[in-house]
Amino acid sequence: MTDRTLRVALLGCGVVGTEVVRLLQLQRDDLTQRIGASLELVGIAVRRPGRARDLPVDPALFTSDAAALVAREDVDVVIEVIGGIEPARSLLVAALERGVSVVTANKALLAEDGATLYDAARRGNADLYCEASVAGAIPLLRPLRESLAGDRVTRVTGIVNGTTNYILSQMDSTGAGFDEALEEAQALGYAEADPSADIDGFDAAAKAAILAGLAFHTRVTAADVYREGIGEVTASDVRTARDMNGVVKLLAIAERGPDHSGRDSIGVRVHPAILSRTHPLAGVRDAYNAVFVEADAAGQLMFYGRGAGGAPTASAVLGDLVAVCRNRLSDARGAGDSSYAQLRIRPMGETVTRYHVSLDVADKAGVLASVAQAFAVHDVSIQTVHQEGHGDEATLVLVTHEATDAALSATVEEVRRLDSVRAVASVMRVEGGVE
Amino acid sequence: MTDRTLRVALLGCGVVGTEVVRLLQLQRDDLTQRIGASLELVGIAVRRPGRARDLPVDPALFTSDAAALVAREDVDVVIEVIGGIEPARSLLVAALERGVSVVTANKALLAEDGATLYDAARRGNADLYCEASVAGAIPLLRPLRESLAGDRVTRVTGIVNGTTNYILSQMDSTGAGFDEALEEAQALGYAEADPSADIDGFDAAAKAAILAGLAFHTRVTAADVYREGIGEVTASDVRTARDMNGVVKLLAIAERGPDHSGRDSIGVRVHPAILSRTHPLAGVRDAYNAVFVEADAAGQLMFYGRGAGGAPTASAVLGDLVAVCRNRLSDARGAGDSSYAQLRIRPMGETVTRYHVSLDVADKAGVLASVAQAFAVHDVSIQTVHQEGHGDEATLVLVTHEATDAALSATVEEVRRLDSVRAVASVMRVEGGVE
Repeated sequence: MTDRTLRVALLGCGVVGTEVVRLLQLQRDDLTQRIGASLELVGIAVRRPGRARDLPVDPALFTSDAAALVAREDVDVVIEVIGGIEPARSLLVAALERGVSVVTANKALLAEDGATLYDAARRGNADLYCEASVAGAIPLLRPLRESLAGDRVTRVTGIVNGTTNYILSQMDSTGAGFDEALEEAQALGYAEADPSADIDGFDAAAKAAILAGLAFHTRVTAADVYREGIGEVTASDVRTARDMNGVVKLLAIAERGPDHSGRDSIGVRVHPAILSRTHPLAGVRDAYNAVFVEADAAGQLMFYGRGAGGAPTASAVLGDLVAVCRNRLSDARGAGDSSYAQLRIRPMGETVTRYHVSLDVADKAGVLASVAQAFAVHDVSIQTVHQEGHGDEATLVLVTHEATDAALSATVEEVRRLDSVRAVASVMRVEGGVE
Repeated sequence: MTDRTLRVALLGCGVVGTEVVRLLQLQRDDLTQRIGASLELVGIAVRRPGRARDLPVDPALFTSDAAALVAREDVDVVIEVIGGIEPARSLLVAALERGVSVVTANKALLAEDGATLYDAARRGNADLYCEASVAGAIPLLRPLRESLAGDRVTRVTGIVNGTTNYILSQMDSTGAGFDEALEEAQALGYAEADPSADIDGFDAAAKAAILAGLAFHTRVTAADVYREGIGEVTASDVRTARDMNGVVKLLAIAERGPDHSGRDSIGVRVHPAILSRTHPLAGVRDAYNAVFVEADAAGQLMFYGRGAGGAPTASAVLGDLVAVCRNRLSDARGAGDSSYAQLRIRPMGETVTRYHVSLDVADKAGVLASVAQAFAVHDVSIQTVHQEGHGDEATLVLVTHEATDAALSATVEEVRRLDSVRAVASVMRVEGGVE
């Protein structure tokens, strides 16, 4: 059964690419058995082919001409771990259109323009697999796309960015402020020198778009995702969450349900939120990722593991590689993208959730009445309210029942204008049943 | 794309079968889109076809002749939710040999004689999918078989039986004894009137065999699995675990590693153990299931969800159904079983782990010396020891470093014979890094 050889081209040889090469060597015999054919790495496209690398491969494999490598007639599968939109997109479209299958870890490209790739895959009758693009090693996309294919997913809630989860975990366990926790994360290599992609939620938003598309059979791009980062989360917010038996997490949430007109629609958002400590996601700490899935028949599921890193991501790439190679040998294709449902994507204002609002107020008669009136006018019902401190230090803390984001925003605007309110200290969404 | 119709025969219509029928109706349009063909349920084999059922299907579909249903020329896929060895095995072999694909939830059959089914599938070039057989709705077998196909799994640790996990969770949170917790589980419907299959670990052992086979590409049957149930776990054991910041769980463990001669081999076992509360599995409570997977490149992964129940299990069945139908339309086959590695299965005596041992002793000089000597003779190194109480109520509590099960058993036998030891009160394995 091992007479046949499948030829693999690798685009990119950074942290993930290096691990892919290493594992291809280390697991050579097992991969041959599991695929039913042997694999040959025929080229590695990199920016600087001459650079010294500590990799057990023929130096002649390295090339700076990625386009020529992808165009080689003998290539069966392209693995792309360059990242970014171009030249990755053009290279992958060229491969897919020629019928060459692709395994990619490129979340930015999939979230911005996955449709172009999937369309090319369809034209070329080729596979496009991307397990490594979301939550590193955690098998997640395949379960969503395949195992739950007979069910109806209603909600996906994920901790999908390790850097921000590390920072928030530190703030929770040490009481540190955001800047201090970020510095520590940078010192330990969990955060980049320019941490904006993580901190501001861009990375999580790209992953949310990919997850939402798979879960709801609808095309979703990063631009469709409401996004707030964790830069504004204070030590005081984290303490407040603790007092409610909650923890602050950066959540990526994709949910499906009827909109105000009763039409089935979806919402996709990334923002920090207070999550009950009894929720399975609350225990996901440090740089770990997890995704919590709710489906009509399956109930609640959670997938947990390493969300990033060379080896975990390479594991996901090789899992996909085995699948596309098996498909190739049996002249089959895996499930492509599925966007038949074409559900409407709701704007953030229609999102319904609960809110924790802290107001710095003047401690005088009538404050609560005027604040409560502002909430009532916008139909935002208050679940609990209590005052902390007094005199000039008084703070009014409110937790609402469910309300739309638009109603809450309007309420906050109105409250901000009240004479008795000195400042809106914080507004945090509350998820997962905190009381 | 929806001109084609695929015909499905259902064997069994109990709790799971009823949900399968219900979901097939409810999700009809989505399933058609996801498969690319419509599904037609052409027959339901049951023991009593005339019985009144609250199901929205033509009563004429019910038949008591399962063999005739399976033999129908127009059937494309058979779903089996009868359970047990026969007649399920004969029916499925007949279907598979004729090239009819099978989706089954039958863990007992797969664990006892999965090889016969997989061989028949190979001969008939048909698919055999069984996601629902382990951990209900949790997508687990497919990730193990496919997503981790490019990695090397080293250990799988599962809480795979909801009944025993419910009982142990109750004992942990209320301090109840085993009998009391079992009665409550029975009253709530979490345990059967005859609870032996769950309590004595048979159910978990069948699932452990299936998991081990997939993880290690080796044929493993239920008879290869070392098995101890939870019937002997006392309120005192649970308290002891708490004192160590641990919790007692019934664990299904499949692990791979060199045996004493350095040869790669596997061990598969089901038994109660003290697990550190910091382990991700420790938080899995009540009737939930979870499986913790360790792999060389992926690191630590966990899959969590409902392990049983009609709807969750039916969700897994339908996920498989979509996959085999897609394969059928593209004339492809999914991955069959894989047993190329044929690793040796170690007997329990070779298992290496840590132990917690409680001894009722006479509180007199020399007791510790004689006990310590017995441990030393068998090369079982003691990590901590302390005495509780004194006089006739004295108890010596020891926690060992890693030792083989054979060495520990020999040690316990020797200790039991010591004059100064009145009784061996309990021996519990310790897993997951409790200190």
